[in-house]
Amino acid sequence: MAGKRYLMTPGPTPVPPEVLAAIAAPVVHHRSPDFRPIYEECLGRLKQVVRTEHDVLLFTASGTGAFESAVANLTSPGDRALVVSAGSFGERWAELVHLKLEWGATPEPAELREKLEEAGGAKVVYLVQSETSTGVVADVQALAAVAKEAGSLVVVDAVSSLGAVPLEADAWGVDVVVSGSQKALMTPPGLAVASVSPAALEAAAGSTTPRFYFDWARTRAAQHKLDAPFTPSVPLVAGLNVALGLLLEEGLEAAFERHVRLGRACREGAKAMGLELFSPDEDRSAVVTAVRSPEGIDAKDVVRLLRDRFGITIANGQGPLIGKIFRLGHIGWFDVFDIATQLGAVELALAELGAEVERGVAVTRALETFADAARV
Amino acid sequence: MAGKRYLMTPGPTPVPPEVLAAIAAPVVHHRSPDFRPIYEECLGRLKQVVRTEHDVLLFTASGTGAFESAVANLTSPGDRALVVSAGSFGERWAELVHLKLEWGATPEPAELREKLEEAGGAKVVYLVQSETSTGVVADVQALAAVAKEAGSLVVVDAVSSLGAVPLEADAWGVDVVVSGSQKALMTPPGLAVASVSPAALEAAAGSTTPRFYFDWARTRAAQHKLDAPFTPSVPLVAGLNVALGLLLEEGLEAAFERHVRLGRACREGAKAMGLELFSPDEDRSAVVTAVRSPEGIDAKDVVRLLRDRFGITIANGQGPLIGKIFRLGHIGWFDVFDIATQLGAVELALAELGAEVERGVAVTRALETFADAARV
Repeated sequence: MAGKRYLMTPGPTPVPPEVLAAIAAPVVHHRSPDFRPIYEECLGRLKQVVRTEHDVLLFTASGTGAFESAVANLTSPGDRALVVSAGSFGERWAELVHLKLEWGATPEPAELREKLEEAGGAKVVYLVQSETSTGVVADVQALAAVAKEAGSLVVVDAVSSLGAVPLEADAWGVDVVVSGSQKALMTPPGLAVASVSPAALEAAAGSTTPRFYFDWARTRAAQHKLDAPFTPSVPLVAGLNVALGLLLEEGLEAAFERHVRLGRACREGAKAMGLELFSPDEDRSAVVTAVRSPEGIDAKDVVRLLRDRFGITIANGQGPLIGKIFRLGHIGWFDVFDIATQLGAVELALAELGAEVERGVAVTRALETFADAARV
Repeated sequence: MAGKRYLMTPGPTPVPPEVLAAIAAPVVHHRSPDFRPIYEECLGRLKQVVRTEHDVLLFTASGTGAFESAVANLTSPGDRALVVSAGSFGERWAELVHLKLEWGATPEPAELREKLEEAGGAKVVYLVQSETSTGVVADVQALAAVAKEAGSLVVVDAVSSLGAVPLEADAWGVDVVVSGSQKALMTPPGLAVASVSPAALEAAAGSTTPRFYFDWARTRAAQHKLDAPFTPSVPLVAGLNVALGLLLEEGLEAAFERHVRLGRACREGAKAMGLELFSPDEDRSAVVTAVRSPEGIDAKDVVRLLRDRFGITIANGQGPLIGKIFRLGHIGWFDVFDIATQLGAVELALAELGAEVERGVAVTRALETFADAARV
């Protein structure tokens, strides 16, 4: 079965066949009655998933595009913005204050408060909810509260977390939630969203940064007429609508719970074969499990062996972690058997590479942990 | 057969089943050996279609996004740019000189020369090759020559024309060709391209306009490593690659010739039933045929009747032409029988709406014209 492929990276993630089928349907015109009901339903479902009463703007772009929309609409040249470990993104627009933590660290609300005081406040605070490079999921609720307290607008990069871990845009006072289609929203890459609070829209009205494609006011005005400002990717919107339907049918709370259980199962399985975790061994770490490669084994070889031998794509470490960790994804359309598949393959690969791993326990431990968690 | 749909607008256009099948394939990782060969082949084919030795940059966005990339990368605040009938797009970046012609007019090289002299030159001249709102295809070769003579960079909006009518980026001295996936490239909307000449890249290096997602240098550097700067829409790239393969297999010259013959067939058929053309009755008008609605008949009713009765989507007029013309598309995956379908349905609809149309001749005339043209 050399042809059978398993996509198990933290994004893009596997897409349910119902979604692929919707994407493969003949294209319809975006300003016709064939499309408008789909568009309307999709925009409505996005609001439910982001948990906001306000607009969720939909862009044909990668998640970075929607993130750029936040930078371009919220900040003018010279404005001060604070980024909590979000990496390099839009240094040309804003004067950035960077609360830069070590890779793998979990940002603490107290650190953010201190940094904001030190900087004399910031117009916008950018947070990353799920850091897929390390498996850390930040406590966005607490961080957002600190930022609001300091009078900042809060933007959350929820690209790999929206739909997998709890996020309450309105209840937590998050002004902008940015996400992409290709992670827990179970759709191929190509669509991105930005929810916009009234305060965010007010700031946008005053921003002098030039923008056109990612201009919020233009997109919002068009969406209110059930139109799109530019030709949207009709098949991807149709696919996203089906995927959001699947997610809401499962229920957001049930999906969050499933991700928690998948994370537990993956961590317990990895530990059972004697591996050391890199990502935190805690329930919030529910979207990707980063595992340290055993002493003397290059993680790149593990990744390569899984791909070449079994057709399984997992992710290597990034930046300073390349070769040191491998990452097992469980974002979106995943069940425990996908965890079992990854653990079983990792066990075989590590044994072949000469690592001392405990054989024959990881898969069972994962399945049991998942089942136990269901009874909690 | 109320369920059978015919998409016959000037964009989005119908997508061949081979392309839809490629799009529906399980998603692969964009940085894996499953995707890189597809990406490489697609980028190479784009160069063949644009007819350039230089890079064609690929964005996950609508055509407007790629157009914005040209504005943001080529012009700094205060630069002078001249737009030939391209409508409203990026007035915040550049000081725009607008050579604004009447809807339906064909821009003349002499007018452009005069306007450029009057303005004291312009850093960039923006041209539209195919104006889908009217069916006019401009003589881009002649217009580009005038602009180059005046020392301007030339950007061509070829969204609805690339792959349907001749365009020679390098030979004609066009610095930037902008296009989208959803017209003659026979792919759903969601991808856009911008070819970049060395002079365009040099200008981009000096532009101070902030940009990130649409930054040419970033995208170009990534593409040279067969990477994408941001997660691309994997299925749409796979689909575009198949579609470009179909186009190049037919041959660009053969595709251009087919579009000329489709245009002739459509015009002769429309005239045969006694209708008056709005778009020019000339071979260059090969992508969409705009037809005047008969006296007393609202074009909106024609469009609605075709949609409700036959499942056929054609386009209404836009702006000042709304209700006055309807537009029959023949961009991309079209053969003469699609022209026959549109003409037959229009004849039935107009008769039902009480227009005096000549019955029973349009379809035959179209088929004959197409066949005759083949012998020319």
